[in-house]
Amino acid sequence: MSNVLRAITVSVTLAGFVRLQAAEGKLTAAQVIDQIKAHVGVSWQSQTVDTVKAGNPDTPVTGIATTFAATMDVLQRAAASGKNLIIAHEPTFYNHLDQTDELKNDAVYQAKRQFIEEHGMVVFRFHDHWHRHRPDGILTGMVAALGWGDYQDKTTPYLFQHPSVTLNQLAEEAKRKLNIRALRVVGAPDMNVTGIAFLPGASGSEKQIEALERPDVQVLVAGESREWETVEYVRDASTQGKKKALILLGHVPSEEAGMKYCAEWLKTFLPGVPIEFVPAGEPFWTPR
Amino acid sequence: MSNVLRAITVSVTLAGFVRLQAAEGKLTAAQVIDQIKAHVGVSWQSQTVDTVKAGNPDTPVTGIATTFAATMDVLQRAAASGKNLIIAHEPTFYNHLDQTDELKNDAVYQAKRQFIEEHGMVVFRFHDHWHRHRPDGILTGMVAALGWGDYQDKTTPYLFQHPSVTLNQLAEEAKRKLNIRALRVVGAPDMNVTGIAFLPGASGSEKQIEALERPDVQVLVAGESREWETVEYVRDASTQGKKKALILLGHVPSEEAGMKYCAEWLKTFLPGVPIEFVPAGEPFWTPR
Repeated sequence: MSNVLRAITVSVTLAGFVRLQAAEGKLTAAQVIDQIKAHVGVSWQSQTVDTVKAGNPDTPVTGIATTFAATMDVLQRAAASGKNLIIAHEPTFYNHLDQTDELKNDAVYQAKRQFIEEHGMVVFRFHDHWHRHRPDGILTGMVAALGWGDYQDKTTPYLFQHPSVTLNQLAEEAKRKLNIRALRVVGAPDMNVTGIAFLPGASGSEKQIEALERPDVQVLVAGESREWETVEYVRDASTQGKKKALILLGHVPSEEAGMKYCAEWLKTFLPGVPIEFVPAGEPFWTPR
Repeated sequence: MSNVLRAITVSVTLAGFVRLQAAEGKLTAAQVIDQIKAHVGVSWQSQTVDTVKAGNPDTPVTGIATTFAATMDVLQRAAASGKNLIIAHEPTFYNHLDQTDELKNDAVYQAKRQFIEEHGMVVFRFHDHWHRHRPDGILTGMVAALGWGDYQDKTTPYLFQHPSVTLNQLAEEAKRKLNIRALRVVGAPDMNVTGIAFLPGASGSEKQIEALERPDVQVLVAGESREWETVEYVRDASTQGKKKALILLGHVPSEEAGMKYCAEWLKTFLPGVPIEFVPAGEPFWTPR
């Protein structure tokens, strides 16, 4: 048998095994994670936050919920619909590395941990490698949600050429399409914008400012920024008469549609497993 | 001459010298900073961000502008009113340590640096020691702006017992009193609150969560928080039915009145020097 034939046979056999195990509810969380590693298309990093944050990886999977973060509300809704594997983009325990030493005696942490254990749930974080997937899984889902596919640069996918609008119009468009309550803007409301850099999440001020330095970028659309960093940079640029602006969508609205797309992607290689996108939703509201 | 008499004489002489030099416009930025160090009431730390960020400390001071940050707009307004020493609470060049290596070729940075040089201005950061001043200078100014002096705890000054209101009413009150456009809230709008922890600025999630763990605190009022940290902690607490909430004022509105108070404080030991609070103002606006 040629290597090619052998590879195909192994692949078909593996797919058949996955389908069979899934149908019988026997695929464990660890096996689902192995499938993700096998399909993500980039080598798995040794230094990564993409690990199991809570629960036993040998738990048989009854269903998968993809989400921005395994909030208490997401856990409750997933459990209610019989899904015990949460695939979340962001931390479960309130810091990037999910360090829980400081939280050991915290009532909120304890109740969350207890809920996960009592419901036999497993939380897996899928952050670094979903961004490293080509195309970036988060960006892909967000571009679909914004309807900006036709504006996207072919070689530099975080750049967009939007039909000319004012900054205020662009902010209103993003607010409406992503259904955001607490969107914030820096810059002159009436300035015309066409060149957009879109960096979901909290990519850091170095990367954000680099994008704003580009002559073909007038507005950076981002999730969040520490307010003494990119925010003040854009305010100064604007005062200097430079055509630069910033739209902060909020972290959740800037990334969550990328986890909706993750659910669709998982279905392509996990047939028979119930998979659902369970939105965490924007955490903020604003008073009158 | 007794030591006490000698001390008084030296003190009177020094005050007279300061008054004379100021009146003749001969007090340098370095001498003003020495006066701040002499009056702040805590020993000056060797590890501190409270240093000169731009300009020559030997520049004779024509006037002082206190502010949240030496934004381009603040620099322009201070220069227009003849004030060449900016005393700012936050960084000038978009990161906590005002590191400028990455900004050397950046047009916004270059224009700002050039404006400061051409106008013979000096920017001094007054952050750590203004917080260490007893009472905390930022908190003192903010409590005055909010009118919360009567509610403040005598021994733990960041705690307040507010007359019972709903979370929504408290958010509206803060928004109105501090004239905020982009205030954001997490928690149940109708929950009753009386126990408030007020931590201006970005004090970090460890300190913020610690405050929220207190049984006598229902709502944390803060400047900003990384959105996957304190924000998600409060969202989970709220889902669990715990009476916890978060009001994010924004970094500038949460601290700036503390620099207004700084102007008043400086006048007590820098007679004859023109001193003015020049607000940087909230950077954000929100679309309809």
